[in-house]
Amino acid sequence: MTYTNTRLKLASRPVGLPQSENFAFDTVSIPSLAEGQVLVKTHFISIDPAMRGWMNGAKSYMPPVALGEVFRALGAGQIIESRHPDFAVGDYVTGDFQVQQFVLRDGTAALDASNPATYLLKVDPTLAALETYLATLGMPGLTAYFGLLATGQPQPGETVVVSGAAGAVGSVVGQLAKLKGCRVVGLVGSQEKIDYCLNELGFDACLNYKDPYIRATLRSACPQGIDIYFDNVGGDLLDYALERLRLRARVVLCGAISQYNNMAPVKGPANYLSLLVNRARMEGIVVMDHAAHFAPATKEMASWLQDGRLLTPKVQVAHGIHNFLPALLQLFSGENFGKVLLAP
Amino acid sequence: MTYTNTRLKLASRPVGLPQSENFAFDTVSIPSLAEGQVLVKTHFISIDPAMRGWMNGAKSYMPPVALGEVFRALGAGQIIESRHPDFAVGDYVTGDFQVQQFVLRDGTAALDASNPATYLLKVDPTLAALETYLATLGMPGLTAYFGLLATGQPQPGETVVVSGAAGAVGSVVGQLAKLKGCRVVGLVGSQEKIDYCLNELGFDACLNYKDPYIRATLRSACPQGIDIYFDNVGGDLLDYALERLRLRARVVLCGAISQYNNMAPVKGPANYLSLLVNRARMEGIVVMDHAAHFAPATKEMASWLQDGRLLTPKVQVAHGIHNFLPALLQLFSGENFGKVLLAP
Repeated sequence: MTYTNTRLKLASRPVGLPQSENFAFDTVSIPSLAEGQVLVKTHFISIDPAMRGWMNGAKSYMPPVALGEVFRALGAGQIIESRHPDFAVGDYVTGDFQVQQFVLRDGTAALDASNPATYLLKVDPTLAALETYLATLGMPGLTAYFGLLATGQPQPGETVVVSGAAGAVGSVVGQLAKLKGCRVVGLVGSQEKIDYCLNELGFDACLNYKDPYIRATLRSACPQGIDIYFDNVGGDLLDYALERLRLRARVVLCGAISQYNNMAPVKGPANYLSLLVNRARMEGIVVMDHAAHFAPATKEMASWLQDGRLLTPKVQVAHGIHNFLPALLQLFSGENFGKVLLAP
Repeated sequence: MTYTNTRLKLASRPVGLPQSENFAFDTVSIPSLAEGQVLVKTHFISIDPAMRGWMNGAKSYMPPVALGEVFRALGAGQIIESRHPDFAVGDYVTGDFQVQQFVLRDGTAALDASNPATYLLKVDPTLAALETYLATLGMPGLTAYFGLLATGQPQPGETVVVSGAAGAVGSVVGQLAKLKGCRVVGLVGSQEKIDYCLNELGFDACLNYKDPYIRATLRSACPQGIDIYFDNVGGDLLDYALERLRLRARVVLCGAISQYNNMAPVKGPANYLSLLVNRARMEGIVVMDHAAHFAPATKEMASWLQDGRLLTPKVQVAHGIHNFLPALLQLFSGENFGKVLLAP
């Protein structure tokens, strides 16, 4: 059978918020499979804040996406043709799919776990829904796991504040912090998200960062101060959190979504000297550094999902590859609720 | 014998640079010693950047100095009268002397090492000059020791950049980093200080932060990037250093002298997301946290001073208690060269 594959390429580098002119679509035919190749039909593409960084020309923890290149994206899907003995039609896999409808890949390269760009990880759809492998059991969940547990090192009774608390990373951070016996305060952008964090995720408090008195509200919500601030958003909230740090607090820098589309320079945290006064530390987390421990971490998180200690992640699916940009922009406006996926 | 003791008190809290109106002097008679008391003649008062913070009303790692209180200061001097068996006339001591010409203290309180406000540490003037006990063998040297070795954790071959490099803390940081096999780059404010760092302290490079091209010059001086940035000054230099961090770099926050007299809010480091990209950390150091290890650290530093691996610190003495403010202001203008002491 012949398939046509529509793909999204980076056409130009955005300044500020990405625009449709920054992207181009093309459609190509998938050739017949050569010996050793496998063909994956993409069910879901993961829409991530980090994508904005990959659009810039500057070096970061990953190289930028080149102009004219099919855009980088994690995805999940199913093998629909295989000429490699280790992949069977019907197998479910995740990996770096790029933003396209089909992934044609050399099966041997797909077995090489040391190369994230070509690796295809087989996943068990009876253990968790395919979407969950792009959320709690994928990069967002692992980011929460290693960022909170390895970098944050939560202790029972400590106060953990997480921004972007209803999102794919933040919702797992908060739940893991509860599992570790912490008091958890979430920061989100709507009443609906507050209700979710309090009533479903079991946070102790949850605040709307759009509250004009958020600085004071955060203070009241953390009467003992903050032991861990897990930051996904940057901006003023980071400053308000710094202001409330306790002795030997940890600020886990996971992201700064409020700053990614800035045309002005990033707003530096004016209260950074709170790190000095409180002998606190601020440290960055990049999940790929922990790749050697993904398997046991995923297994542990899967067991927590199964016994209900972690909630099945909230997922929001946009349909059609042409909806890539609207889906991405929801992350920056905060209109999304839970993990954003694209079914291309 | 009767002594008159002139003291400096905090009269009002400065806004911006301290002014003479913020201080008041008084002169009191020292009463005859009661049983158990000792009297110290102050030889030197340590003039420290941290003093600016103590003038503010806000809580920090130490309580502020109260209005009307004799101003807090470390000092070094000699016992001139004693009615306590553990202190002999002629003993040399250091401690929290406050800014005054004499210190009358209860000898039992002076023996209590757990109370820095009353403790008097006996020092051996044959091992090092009394001035050195307020520099390399005092708080500045210990700050360098624990900040660099415990927080920074330098490894041989790493690049260490230190700001305020010719100062009481920075000069020791750089020398200790050399002892640990690092490449050391200093940041200072004059050619005279550059010469000192290169020719006497043995740094590998030293740059003038007033150079309009300092950002590019720092980049050239650190072709491999920066593994440890030991920051005494804050401001733009911190941003330039963040920009050049290597993977898993450490930023040791010791001070931010460029920001202490700000009337505007502190300039936050706009490049703080370099901590994320490079999985680096920024952490504050307060030397008193290491008090339990002061004795062995001082002993080790004394041995390095004796065998020449550490240089005798450069010291600059202002004379007369009325010169407290000009001596302090030199720290902020950068006109001082080495440890500033006041002989009251």
